[in-house]
Amino acid sequence: MDDAEIRDLADFASALGDLARRETLTRAGGGEPVIDKSGGGAFDPVTEADRAAETALRRAIEARYPEHGISGEEFPDRPPTGRYGWSLDPIDGTGSFICGLPTWTTLIALLDGAAPLIGLIDAPRLDERYLGYAGQATLNGTPIAVSFCRALAEARLSTTDPYLLEGTDRDGFERLRRAARTTRYGHDAYAYARLAAGSIDLIVEAGLKPHDLNALIPVVRGAGGVIGDWLGNDDCAGGRLVAAASWELYDEAVAILNA
Amino acid sequence: MDDAEIRDLADFASALGDLARRETLTRAGGGEPVIDKSGGGAFDPVTEADRAAETALRRAIEARYPEHGISGEEFPDRPPTGRYGWSLDPIDGTGSFICGLPTWTTLIALLDGAAPLIGLIDAPRLDERYLGYAGQATLNGTPIAVSFCRALAEARLSTTDPYLLEGTDRDGFERLRRAARTTRYGHDAYAYARLAAGSIDLIVEAGLKPHDLNALIPVVRGAGGVIGDWLGNDDCAGGRLVAAASWELYDEAVAILNA
Repeated sequence: MDDAEIRDLADFASALGDLARRETLTRAGGGEPVIDKSGGGAFDPVTEADRAAETALRRAIEARYPEHGISGEEFPDRPPTGRYGWSLDPIDGTGSFICGLPTWTTLIALLDGAAPLIGLIDAPRLDERYLGYAGQATLNGTPIAVSFCRALAEARLSTTDPYLLEGTDRDGFERLRRAARTTRYGHDAYAYARLAAGSIDLIVEAGLKPHDLNALIPVVRGAGGVIGDWLGNDDCAGGRLVAAASWELYDEAVAILNA
Repeated sequence: MDDAEIRDLADFASALGDLARRETLTRAGGGEPVIDKSGGGAFDPVTEADRAAETALRRAIEARYPEHGISGEEFPDRPPTGRYGWSLDPIDGTGSFICGLPTWTTLIALLDGAAPLIGLIDAPRLDERYLGYAGQATLNGTPIAVSFCRALAEARLSTTDPYLLEGTDRDGFERLRRAARTTRYGHDAYAYARLAAGSIDLIVEAGLKPHDLNALIPVVRGAGGVIGDWLGNDDCAGGRLVAAASWELYDEAVAILNA
């Protein structure tokens, strides 16, 4: 794919972000009805906004790029006829959305096979759009970069919910938390956006699904950050992520998680 | 104090919110230098913004109400010559502030002796100002009310950081978390604002200081919510708070915390 092609696709991803905002933002009061997708088991909220936004995104992609695949959280996959496909999560952080908290996001990624080329993290309530591709990242069009943090003792650590980590994972996180400068909770994909923008230094999470993570990778890497798994590998597919502002910090975190 | 007097004081509290925004918002990028107040021990961030905002608030109060006391987080208390005093926390959620996260707030309360009469929770990054007094609460001037939630199984629970709860407190919180519909972390005083606005139903926290909690009480109660301690008492002074959208939910939470 040449520069002009990827730029066109990034512009299209941003247009998709606008489309999703129309569906999500008008419903983002925190009070709308919630469908329990889990059928009465664990709470797994899906809002009307989630479905309406994914429908709008799918239609726009099908109209413009009928050969592209589409994989979203809410509807069955549409297989590609070529190598490219879109990964969609209309509302990442549905828990925040239904609690009227502002850091839910829309995640959109363009994949080449399994590799994300373009990532968009859009935070409608904050009017912040993070876009990463071709080794760079922007916030509302302005280039951003990760912080200079290289040591855990100086690091601002984040994870969405420590109770999502179990057993030895939780033990590893506890070691990390005690060694870090400060720890914040609760921000889902938005934390990765802030890592890309330089105000969070380290994120550790497990259990992420492809739609939760594909868009994060080009944004974090485009801003100069590191994102890989808990074992020091480049591979994020298992949904066990460590994202860091530097290789030094990433390596230190991986060592402590596995100590 | 008559209606006109308290309305004047509430308008003044809102004007103080504007003053604080001038000092905080311009510095709220997430990248400013941090002073370690603890002298090298536990991380306890104090920003330039915190001190600048408290200085501005103190000057304004001293000029308009020289007889009022002032108690803030950053500077020594100024004792009242009468019964009224102001409680100030220029930046609640300094951890969020330094991590570039949007839900830090400014907390301002007017006290009659130890009892808060007026509470203001201002969220500059979100342009949301919550004001509670005289049995009512507003968000940017529009009346707000708590949700209709009466049962823990339906409740959206929040706490800032589960690691701030220790021993039997943590055990109690774990029981609550397992029984609640969903749990969100990380929002400090902003969670109480969202409880008042109906999108969070229950909050459990410990270790809050007077400046952290005085402003919350008139906002939560003005919106029809309940706020008290972990033992079912009306008294918040110990900094162990349970806030709920209804008495039924408050009582259920207290019972489970003490089970």
